[in-house]
Amino acid sequence: MIVMDEKETDKKAALIEFFKADKFVELAGIKIEEITNEYAVCTAEITPAHLNANGCVQGGMLYTLADFTFAVLENYLHATTVTQCGHINYLRPAFTDKLIATARETERAGHTCLCEVRVTDASGKVCCICNFSGFIKEK
Amino acid sequence: MIVMDEKETDKKAALIEFFKADKFVELAGIKIEEITNEYAVCTAEITPAHLNANGCVQGGMLYTLADFTFAVLENYLHATTVTQCGHINYLRPAFTDKLIATARETERAGHTCLCEVRVTDASGKVCCICNFSGFIKEK
Amino acid sequence: MIVMDEKETDKKAALIEFFKADKFVELAGIKIEEITNEYAVCTAEITPAHLNANGCVQGGMLYTLADFTFAVLENYLHATTVTQCGHINYLRPAFTDKLIATARETERAGHTCLCEVRVTDASGKVCCICNFSGFIKEK
Amino acid sequence: MIVMDEKETDKKAALIEFFKADKFVELAGIKIEEITNEYAVCTAEITPAHLNANGCVQGGMLYTLADFTFAVLENYLHATTVTQCGHINYLRPAFTDKLIATARETERAGHTCLCEVRVTDASGKVCCICNFSGFIKEK
Repeated sequence: MIVMDEKETDKKAALIEFFKADKFVELAGIKIEEITNEYAVCTAEITPAHLNANGCVQGGMLYTLADFTFAVLENYLHATTVTQCGHINYLRPAFTDKLIATARETERAGHTCLCEVRVTDASGKVCCICNFSGFIKEK
Repeated sequence: MIVMDEKETDKKAALIEFFKADKFVELAGIKIEEITNEYAVCTAEITPAHLNANGCVQGGMLYTLADFTFAVLENYLHATTVTQCGHINYLRPAFTDKLIATARETERAGHTCLCEVRVTDASGKVCCICNFSGFIKEK
Repeated sequence: MIVMDEKETDKKAALIEFFKADKFVELAGIKIEEITNEYAVCTAEITPAHLNANGCVQGGMLYTLADFTFAVLENYLHATTVTQCGHINYLRPAFTDKLIATARETERAGHTCLCEVRVTDASGKVCCICNFSGFIKEK
Repeated sequence: MIVMDEKETDKKAALIEFFKADKFVELAGIKIEEITNEYAVCTAEITPAHLNANGCVQGGMLYTLADFTFAVLENYLHATTVTQCGHINYLRPAFTDKLIATARETERAGHTCLCEVRVTDASGKVCCICNFSGFIKEK
């Protein structure tokens, strides 16, 4: 049990270390908050640099946060996983000082994993829901 | 004819001016290259800040470029248009010094417009294809 | 309480009656099993008429079952709702004598509702997951 | 040249023969009209059996026609290709006596092919546009 905990901790630490090399995520100010076997959470403090011409959070920023949270979860649950396709549904414009993305795997079969990511503002309102399919390189 | 040309030029200039306020697009280094009635082209010079932990262009960067090119085209063709949903298919990792996105409207019906955006590297290879649906606020 | 129950029952009965006019669903052998405020379930007994050239359930049949289950749920939860777009991820070929589709609304905002539909075979294995967005005509 | 033509003809004939075993497509009244290296066309004569409860062509019928046209094209262009995911955007309700679906491959990379299918009514109006990604089993 203790050994397992250590392994888990090691895997998380290695993953967090690995993702430090993601420079676009750094540029976007995205941070990993939580990684578990059920879900992953990433957040971003919203600054003027994240806004579009209408003064709300830019769609690409929302997508980047969701896609990264998906990548964090799937690369924790499986070996190397790459995004095959992503689908984003915009629900409400985000006027907020913080974005929170939560990724959950909805299903896995063979080399394919499906994942839903909900992005909410600081008050908990859902701004967009994304669905990703990933290809798990090694099973 | 001259009047029409002037109007066209005015509309383009106003649109380019409007999109200068998109701060996330500025952060991502994306530029508008061309706006016509048939297509829009945006580009980005790739720097280390655009790369993911595997050293290729981050998926969120590819999406942001595509989504913005869609927004440029649709807001030129119609009145205010907002993205309803976006779908991205990744085809090849982008190891490149430049990305070029070309948006074309595939169909329009009522308040809905559909658009395909192809993102290529400097050599012309397609990195991803995106499909967007937009809601045209005023017809 | 009793009045409310009666109303609920009346709405369900009216909806089931309305959907009897869906002739393609009848042709496909799809039946409504359950309608609640949380989910809707539809099923189909699989016959040779549902199979593709490889001997497993045809992709269009899987989609039709999922799309209809979405329509049943959303038209129960809201006033008239029409499908805007549907997205289907195929996970496993369905060799089965029965298909069960379960629809759950994942989010609603303004005129838009999002819904996930899971289609399983008789043993509970997920064959495909569909995500729909609907437009609610009257709020 | 003649030999090549014969081979082409043989491949088409074999494919048409193979797809005769698709019983759901037969049930839906879908027919292969044309197969070329650039596109494939399938059609369906619309009867009351294809309609939904609102009296227009059922969404699952539209999807089935599009998905099959995609399958016909991709299995002609490549070896065995299976659908990974399908995305359908509904544009106009179809009140028509005939549906025509035209599939074109938009890109191919490695084992992945992307395809757009436009479904029009008898007057040429686009009812829906579908985007599919397929997995090419053998390259």
